[in-house]
Formats: sequence, structure tokens, C-alpha cells
Amino acid sequence: MNETIETILAHRSIRKFKNEPLDGETVETLVQCAQAASTSSYQQVCTIIGVEDREKKEKLAEFAGNQSYVADNGYFFVFCMDYNRHQIAADMKTIDIHETIQSTEAFIVGTVDAALAAQNLSIAAESLGLGIVYIGGLRNSLQEVSDLLNCPEHVLPLFGVAVGYPDAEPGKKPRLPMEAVFYKNQYKSKEETQDLLNQYEQETAEYYSERTGGKRTEGWVTQITASMASPKRTYMKDFVQSKGLNKL
Amino acid sequence: MNETIETILAHRSIRKFKNEPLDGETVETLVQCAQAASTSSYQQVCTIIGVEDREKKEKLAEFAGNQSYVADNGYFFVFCMDYNRHQIAADMKTIDIHETIQSTEAFIVGTVDAALAAQNLSIAAESLGLGIVYIGGLRNSLQEVSDLLNCPEHVLPLFGVAVGYPDAEPGKKPRLPMEAVFYKNQYKSKEETQDLLNQYEQETAEYYSERTGGKRTEGWVTQITASMASPKRTYMKDFVQSKGLNKL
Repeated sequence: MNETIETILAHRSIRKFKNEPLDGETVETLVQCAQAASTSSYQQVCTIIGVEDREKKEKLAEFAGNQSYVADNGYFFVFCMDYNRHQIAADMKTIDIHETIQSTEAFIVGTVDAALAAQNLSIAAESLGLGIVYIGGLRNSLQEVSDLLNCPEHVLPLFGVAVGYPDAEPGKKPRLPMEAVFYKNQYKSKEETQDLLNQYEQETAEYYSERTGGKRTEGWVTQITASMASPKRTYMKDFVQSKGLNKL
Repeated sequence: MNETIETILAHRSIRKFKNEPLDGETVETLVQCAQAASTSSYQQVCTIIGVEDREKKEKLAEFAGNQSYVADNGYFFVFCMDYNRHQIAADMKTIDIHETIQSTEAFIVGTVDAALAAQNLSIAAESLGLGIVYIGGLRNSLQEVSDLLNCPEHVLPLFGVAVGYPDAEPGKKPRLPMEAVFYKNQYKSKEETQDLLNQYEQETAEYYSERTGGKRTEGWVTQITASMASPKRTYMKDFVQSKGLNKL
């Protein structure tokens, strides 16, 4: 065990930050760390928009479903898949790359590139004693987010990362048992998965029960399947395609 | 600057490993780190398949376009987006979640979840002095990869990560200038981007020229646009949809 691994294992999402902005040097170090992540075929499909403007942060907090910590934090980053840069480069060279950009493959590449960069930034922040939380809630209102940040075609905001000095010490919810997510040489049978899910249902039910003084007695299986019963963000397919992505 | 940030900034992909397998404890620590990453709405949409079987590793190396380091390394992980677990959970509860699983939104969530986990594992490995390389090349032949690892419906192998004791000291290619990927409050204008791309073209051209004794004189703009002129992995849309993903 070393400091880095300790940092990684100690992660929990922080949703309450002190009223203390990150200094410019720290922000730059974090972005440098984001840029140091692996990128598919050297394509570098990620753009980060640092939102410092108070009004814009409040708008984003509203778009994300009134999550106050989107506005109240030390710094707020929006991670975008960005093929606009490649399109401009292609125009400079009069090369047509639209089929590549519109492909499902490119959509995977862009999402992975942005996520790797974001996780580098997050771990770097946590190693400095800062807290972080991912804001998938931006995807509640991507048209509005995109308009607010002037994102052109081929640029898709994927999520935000709020960073700041922690003002809370939240617990750590138990993850799925390792045997349920880490297999050897081949995928597990349905029966094994069912057994592991039953075990995990019980473990998480006990966790919630303890935390709520017995008020909540349902575990992960119950919680997750209920939350997935109605599809969320059903506008996503059309919106993503309107950005010229994930079409082919 | 601390150890973690030093580790992150020192990253370069390693494509030659010593013939020395990772011990079981190290593998478990790495998977624990992967599991500690943020996950959208506690959904935990990532499954990791550790490939230890020599024959399977050689097959994967072949599928990835004959990349020998897919077979020759200290350990090989395949990261999958996995909604099969949620489908089994839903069946246990007789809840219908197929519209959620098939959505573009879920496809983003699953890709992000897997990438965050993989990046945690990668940084943890590098903090231990190991080297890593992402293998997007698995996506050359996903049907074959999926069959080899017995992945059922709703499970999509996204990429591999080869880990091992480095047996090479590759250089570090210059990333895009920070001003070209980090914007404040809004997206940058086309003109600014063009200027930055011209600057980067020159910088990378000089880098390649130095490395090749003047044989290669083209930079990133030339290289990337040429490589994107013909779309890759055009079967991806159909394959992904055949897995019941990214349809709605």
C-alpha cells in the first residue's frame, strides 16, 4: 500500500464544500493531470470547460436538478467529448472525416477519453486533500448546458466534476463483492451472479438499516431495479445525434 | 506536487513487459482500486475479466491486430460495460428495465463507469512501478472477443488494460497545448482553435523529426486527420445494438 492507493481506496463523493476557491496553480495542475491520461490513438477527444462565472455555475446547478454543490464548490469542471477540434483540423487539410466522427466507435472513444481524463483529475485532487463529486445530472438538460457554454456541433458535455475543500465526511457505501465484478478467463454463470446479488442485497440492506435506524431496509437489488424501471433522459439519442455523434 | 501527481504526470504507455506475472495480491489490490471509482447513481456498470489463460491471451492478441503485449505482460484485464447483472436483478424482482438498458443514456453511463474504474486500476498499477497500456484494439473484433470470454447479452467488452513490469522506456509525445483543451466559461472560437492547432502541428512535427532523424516531418494535425479519413470499426453500431445496447 502506498499513498496513491490509499488515496484511491479512500474515495467517497463529497457534496458539501467549504467556501474556498481553488487557486489558479492548483487548477492548472489538475488539468495537466487530466491531459496526462491515456488517449485512444493519440486523438485527445476531451475538452474541459472550467466554469468560474457565478451566474453560469448557478444555472448549471439548476440544470442538474438543483444540486447546490454544482454552484458552491472550489472549482467546477465540465468534461466534453470534443470532435470539433478534429473537424477544424480536417477543414485545414481539406479531408473529410465526418463518417469517422459520426460513428458509434468514435462515440465510445470520446466517452472513454473524457472519462480517463476526469478520473486523473479527480485522483490528483483527492491526493491534495480536496474532495470531488461527478455530476452526471448535467445530462438532465444537455441542450441548455450546451447553449450556456456555447458548445458547437461535435462537442458533447458528458458530466461535470465539482472540486473543493470537503465540508462533510460522508460514509462509504459497500461496493458489489469483488467476485461479482471480477471474473477469470470468462463471464460467470447466471446462477453464480444471482447468489452474489442475493448476498449483496442483504449486505446493503443491513448498511442502510444501520444508517437510517431501521427506516430503510431495502438493499441494492431493490433500489437499483426500482430506479431503472423507467428510462431516464430519453431525449439523449436525438440530442447526441443532433450534435453529429453516435449516428453511424 | 506529491507522489500521486508525480505518478499521474509520468504516465506513458508501456508496450514491452518483462516476463514476470503479477502476484495474486497485487491483482486484487488493483481490482479493489478499480471498484473504488465513482459510479453513476451507484449502478456499478463495470465488469472486469482477468485473462490468465495463455491460449486466450494469445487469441486476444491476435484479435487486437497482433499486438504481442496483449499476450506478453504481467496481467491482462478486459473492461466491460455490464448491464447483465442489472437484468438478472430485475428478473429477480420481476421489474422490466429493458428500455433503460437499451438507452443512449445507459450507454454513456456504462462507458464512463468502466473507464473510471480502468483509470483507477491504471494509476494504482503505475504507483507500484508497473507499466500499463490500454488496448482499444480489442474493438477490432468484438464478436470474437465476446465469444471467447462468453459475454452474454448486455455485456460489451470496451477495451483491455495490459499491466506488467516495464521493459522499455518510451518517450512521451507532447499533448495538445493546455489552452487548446481547457477553456474558461465557454467554448473557444474557431479562429483561436486554428491558431493553436497550427502551433501544435509545428511542435509535434519537430518532435517526430527529432525522433526519426528528419524522416518524419508531419505533425498531429496531418497525422490525425489522415488517420480519421476512413472510418474504423464500422460494424460497431450493429454489434452494440445486437448486445441490446445504445438502441433507444
